[in-house]
Amino acid sequence: MRGSGDLELVADGRRLRFPAVWLRDNCPCAECTDPRSRQKFLDITDIDGDLMVAQAAEAGESVTVTYAPGQHRSTFSRAWLAEHALDAYGDGDGRTEDDKELWLAADMEALDGRRAQVPEASWPRYLAEPAERVRSLAAVLRLGFVLLHDVPAEPGLVLEVAASFGYVRQTNYGALFDVRVEPAPDNLAFTSREILPHTDNPYRDPVPTVQLLHCLCAAGDGGDTGLVDGFAAARALRAADRAAFDVLTGTAVPFGYRDNGAELRASQPLIQLSPRGRVRGVRFNNRSAQPLRLPYADVTAFYAAYRRWAELLRQPERQLNLRLAPGDCLIFDNTRILHARTAFSLPAGEDGSPGRHLQGCYADLDGLASTVAVLSRAGADARSPGEAS
Amino acid sequence: MRGSGDLELVADGRRLRFPAVWLRDNCPCAECTDPRSRQKFLDITDIDGDLMVAQAAEAGESVTVTYAPGQHRSTFSRAWLAEHALDAYGDGDGRTEDDKELWLAADMEALDGRRAQVPEASWPRYLAEPAERVRSLAAVLRLGFVLLHDVPAEPGLVLEVAASFGYVRQTNYGALFDVRVEPAPDNLAFTSREILPHTDNPYRDPVPTVQLLHCLCAAGDGGDTGLVDGFAAARALRAADRAAFDVLTGTAVPFGYRDNGAELRASQPLIQLSPRGRVRGVRFNNRSAQPLRLPYADVTAFYAAYRRWAELLRQPERQLNLRLAPGDCLIFDNTRILHARTAFSLPAGEDGSPGRHLQGCYADLDGLASTVAVLSRAGADARSPGEAS
Repeated sequence: MRGSGDLELVADGRRLRFPAVWLRDNCPCAECTDPRSRQKFLDITDIDGDLMVAQAAEAGESVTVTYAPGQHRSTFSRAWLAEHALDAYGDGDGRTEDDKELWLAADMEALDGRRAQVPEASWPRYLAEPAERVRSLAAVLRLGFVLLHDVPAEPGLVLEVAASFGYVRQTNYGALFDVRVEPAPDNLAFTSREILPHTDNPYRDPVPTVQLLHCLCAAGDGGDTGLVDGFAAARALRAADRAAFDVLTGTAVPFGYRDNGAELRASQPLIQLSPRGRVRGVRFNNRSAQPLRLPYADVTAFYAAYRRWAELLRQPERQLNLRLAPGDCLIFDNTRILHARTAFSLPAGEDGSPGRHLQGCYADLDGLASTVAVLSRAGADARSPGEAS
Repeated sequence: MRGSGDLELVADGRRLRFPAVWLRDNCPCAECTDPRSRQKFLDITDIDGDLMVAQAAEAGESVTVTYAPGQHRSTFSRAWLAEHALDAYGDGDGRTEDDKELWLAADMEALDGRRAQVPEASWPRYLAEPAERVRSLAAVLRLGFVLLHDVPAEPGLVLEVAASFGYVRQTNYGALFDVRVEPAPDNLAFTSREILPHTDNPYRDPVPTVQLLHCLCAAGDGGDTGLVDGFAAARALRAADRAAFDVLTGTAVPFGYRDNGAELRASQPLIQLSPRGRVRGVRFNNRSAQPLRLPYADVTAFYAAYRRWAELLRQPERQLNLRLAPGDCLIFDNTRILHARTAFSLPAGEDGSPGRHLQGCYADLDGLASTVAVLSRAGADARSPGEAS
């Protein structure tokens, strides 16, 4: 343990090794890390380029490292070091396929045909009980959506649902938007047409990562909602046709939206990967796709992959069909879940019905995950590097 | 032009070739594309997998294509086809290094030492003249920032500045946040310490892509603002040390923030690339970096690259130094520009001064770019594919 330049120790029966620069950069002492905020004072350029571990002294559950040059000392708990072993990839942020539970429609149904697996909650209980809020919101992180019932079917309530876990992302559509038949729609969402599985606002960067849809009035016939797990579909594509998967992850597709007051564009791949190649996001929307401009050979390869991907997303076994009733509010991950609706009849006014009317808004996953983390705190804070366990 | 399956034509003296599926997907007729919203009705799965161009008829500036199987016809203008030639990559969204003007501090100074190149504007004129608003906001897209003067030094005005081009991104810090010395800060920004060049909120995904800082009260001494073009620095790193560049673009770095009401984390590379390998974003913040968990060999390679990158970002010639006076408001691209501040004296109360006080808020680039595009419209709409020029 002395003079190698690294810290080597055995903890939890494993042989661990840490370079001096990593230890120094994570030094928990009050000179290097603000005890209150736990933010680092230390910058990488403050650390000597040839830093070595000169000495390491173990005392019970603690290990004190002395560096050279200089005489700075850092004390770490063995448990913290074992937790941060440099033997695998860790510390992801929960956003890739590896931290999700992927599903097909059938996975949401129990053996008796009831949808026992569909994550659902009742709004009054969600509001009253933090544990119910955690359970509901954690479902958005794990499965990609949750269905809240008993949200009063009143205009504007969708903003209260968003505020219960995060912050509304205002856009050119307003803080909230009405999904109903309009006489002169700038967006096909505001017609009674069928809308195929898609993600919202692919022409925006950053795209809204959470979407809410609150049903105020259901259609007499049709207007059912479908949900597809885009991460499960991407994994299936990768297994079935690696070449198509590589084309889609490697091609930025231009999306656009234009009306009198807005002109938005964003170019991103239909399937987005983390640096380690794990699925981290999907975008899919035939309505707002713009003409691809790539060399001829790339275009033909893209269209073959695009067709394969679209066919896969439309496999009936992927689509969970729900019928939103007044008071239902869906919260879903717009980077993962595609949503669709069937065509519907009874537009506003015809036969005296008010017509199908949803209100929607956007929010973001980081705020939602933060709410889950804060509500899940069990009184005690997580261990900091210098604390013995 | 007949029977090849593709459309081939000569336009603008160039020989162009378009596959049938690309043409069919971009058919501008009212059956395929909503004339009002210009959104597509057609889905890729509606297009026959063996579609060919059966016939192409040129008439003046128009080309009418008839497909087989089926007898669908699409009419394109030659000019539109020439604009969308499939011979190069195009239709980016303006967000990568290729669409930016990269700079060093010296580029902002004219020969006489005045900062003739610093993009600046006066708030009353910015408000009164759309052309001045376009010029100012286009500077954020091109150079990464603009400095507005004469914004009344009143609390809350920063929200009006954000609303002049987009939408405030509310976070756990509120709609706006105060940057001043706090007695018990959860963030080192709220001390009088020096803050090295960094981007804000790297622990958030989506990260806020625009930041505003509005000076209400300057420090008596110090507290100067520095700006660094992260895209210029990334380009320099790629030229000088390709291996380090590849390590940084290929390693997700965990960032975190935690206080009583929030617990945020995001893992993203310090330099983010488009699918074609062009620089599209930087994140850099020593204060909120969390312990890396990678295999030992990856960690040592990362730290060598990280040091190189940090040293490069701190080169004095990269940093444009500004002193914000009361009424100044900086708007900058938080995915590209790193900002810093020098330490300052005279915290609040000491000697009777109110102390340095900025107010900040976040917004997003997509809304800003949309505002530039809408204000730039010259009355007439851009050509749609079916219109002759």
